[in-house]
Amino acid sequence: MTAHFSIQPPPIAKLGDTLAQVSTPALLIELDAFEHNIARMAEMAKLHGVALRPHAKAHKSSVIAQKQITAGAIGICCQKLSEAYPFAAAGISDIYISNEFIGPAKIAMAIELARHVKLSLCVDHIAQIEALGLAASAAGVMITVLVEVDIGQARCGVARMEGLATLVDCIAQHSALRFGGLQAFHGGIQHLATWDLRRTSAAASAEKVAAYAQFLSARGVACPVITGSGTGTAEFDVASGVFTEIQPGSYIFMDAHYGANEWNGSAMPRHSLFIATTIMSTAKDDLAVCDVGLKGVAIDSGLPILKPGQNDELKFVRANDEHGVLKIIDNAGAFSRDRLGEQVLLIPGHCDPTANLYDQYVCIRNDKVEDMWDIDARGLSQ
Amino acid sequence: MTAHFSIQPPPIAKLGDTLAQVSTPALLIELDAFEHNIARMAEMAKLHGVALRPHAKAHKSSVIAQKQITAGAIGICCQKLSEAYPFAAAGISDIYISNEFIGPAKIAMAIELARHVKLSLCVDHIAQIEALGLAASAAGVMITVLVEVDIGQARCGVARMEGLATLVDCIAQHSALRFGGLQAFHGGIQHLATWDLRRTSAAASAEKVAAYAQFLSARGVACPVITGSGTGTAEFDVASGVFTEIQPGSYIFMDAHYGANEWNGSAMPRHSLFIATTIMSTAKDDLAVCDVGLKGVAIDSGLPILKPGQNDELKFVRANDEHGVLKIIDNAGAFSRDRLGEQVLLIPGHCDPTANLYDQYVCIRNDKVEDMWDIDARGLSQ
Repeated sequence: MTAHFSIQPPPIAKLGDTLAQVSTPALLIELDAFEHNIARMAEMAKLHGVALRPHAKAHKSSVIAQKQITAGAIGICCQKLSEAYPFAAAGISDIYISNEFIGPAKIAMAIELARHVKLSLCVDHIAQIEALGLAASAAGVMITVLVEVDIGQARCGVARMEGLATLVDCIAQHSALRFGGLQAFHGGIQHLATWDLRRTSAAASAEKVAAYAQFLSARGVACPVITGSGTGTAEFDVASGVFTEIQPGSYIFMDAHYGANEWNGSAMPRHSLFIATTIMSTAKDDLAVCDVGLKGVAIDSGLPILKPGQNDELKFVRANDEHGVLKIIDNAGAFSRDRLGEQVLLIPGHCDPTANLYDQYVCIRNDKVEDMWDIDARGLSQ
Repeated sequence: MTAHFSIQPPPIAKLGDTLAQVSTPALLIELDAFEHNIARMAEMAKLHGVALRPHAKAHKSSVIAQKQITAGAIGICCQKLSEAYPFAAAGISDIYISNEFIGPAKIAMAIELARHVKLSLCVDHIAQIEALGLAASAAGVMITVLVEVDIGQARCGVARMEGLATLVDCIAQHSALRFGGLQAFHGGIQHLATWDLRRTSAAASAEKVAAYAQFLSARGVACPVITGSGTGTAEFDVASGVFTEIQPGSYIFMDAHYGANEWNGSAMPRHSLFIATTIMSTAKDDLAVCDVGLKGVAIDSGLPILKPGQNDELKFVRANDEHGVLKIIDNAGAFSRDRLGEQVLLIPGHCDPTANLYDQYVCIRNDKVEDMWDIDARGLSQ
């Protein structure tokens, strides 16, 4: 028995392993579906002449961001300043932080990032602009600033024309800041169940954005960028004539929450993100207990579902910290097999916070491990 | 603009910083309350002559495990094999994995760990024992094996006497395995709201455990260890005369879910775990939006609550990925102040999966950063 020795857990997989050999729980990307999703969104944006700036908060991986840019994206969104660092370090040169910030620690990160990348930031309060403007000027960096407008989300963003005017005027008073346009995101409409409801809601939101832009135009202020949208409304927003840029994130993965939406044909992303889990206890006749729980799957948007077409007799009914409880549905022969040691694939309810639980994606093609990608921005929420 | 340079996010705090200087979101430990909790549980176990083996899945930090052992704990529980590695590497020499496992990757970790620490494992199926026994024998290591019995949780663990006998007999057939006793945990009774309901439920569970032990005793098999319990029932289980060992985890932190229990005086842990967050958007009159969401606080057991006595006019009502929405309760003057930039302290609903989201604890005493502890087992769920 030796104290203070150096051992580390073994890698969860190695290149060339079969899927069955991967140590569970593991976060998988099925590459065929993933590549389809990356290409499809890029084509859709290009077809409509709209810029694609995918949201990296969905995947937190600089490898994936590079693949998105190779496919045609102009840069990425991050949601936090610290989150931007691994992407900047990996050579992503155009980063937009689509979320508000305040305080000296955040301003210091903004200045450091602006020295290395084309940085744009999002504000909805004069105090954010004043602090940033002074710091950017002192540091001799130029930062593009977008103003968030509320188009129905009722969270951040100015909701009144005069408030927008005040912020735009304030930006203009700072020589180190440049007004970049409008941030306009409505998360609440991304998951509306029917395609038609999303279409009409997206149209109503686009109208609201257009009104803000027209108000500024009437004051002689141009909006170079109008950015927003998400996986659920991207197909409408690209065709709106209002948005110049879309920032979908989940489209690369298609989680169970988005999968529950009604989709219209080709705009539907394919499920590419799975959790491999192993049944490690079968002590109860009607249950199979697997090795992924709250520490390996986010359940804020619903429990994970089983990959369709496999194990359809199982239903994920409860997550404890490190246990997932699968109920065996009573159908022909379902109780006759001892499933101990069997691997099961889950589709997580919500991809963003699930990816934030893992350090690596295990990338699968034809049931083999083809690659492993670091989730290098995991946990960076400052 | 330089590609592929090396920058990293700045540290979220440094020793000696004031609490107000900590970059948010940050996971805080208030040391006075934390030390009280560590000492109190150790005293209670000692008073009743019961061993304390705290569950490290609650904190995932080898620094904290060492403090628990210094205070009198005999070792720790982990919930996964990979989780045990940082503790083993830090010199914790007695580790019990209180959860089932299966498959070659897990067996390999068990063998490696058993070479370095006094390892005990938990089983509820003959296949787990057979695979482990063969591997341990081949490797020349001795592993202690406990059998999980179901005392009402209806998840893992054998529920029938004959099933228990089969497993104990199987362990006896393997020269590299030693029967260690019974694992008996009932998570469902830990959070019963009233003290009296927990007391009577703990007594009923203890009776069930006793029946399993008596069954084995009648067959001439001794149970050196009967282990279980949790923060909600520890005060009853130590006095039960049945449990030889308790494995509470959350007592060091006292999350909001446990805090909602009715407690009886001195057994109540103090709240020591907080999330520091900053209000970063006040664009809506009745809301303050803060910078912690699903990526910084687990909401499976309820939303976080505000630290009592501070900001009592705010209520945490919604978590998005990186936003926490605080509703301003309409009381005298509540709407009159712009809270942008103010720091707010939250008590997370559930400590275990919340700690799993962070890389460090920022340890606070008298509003100053006294220490920072790595969460070195974060993410280790294999």
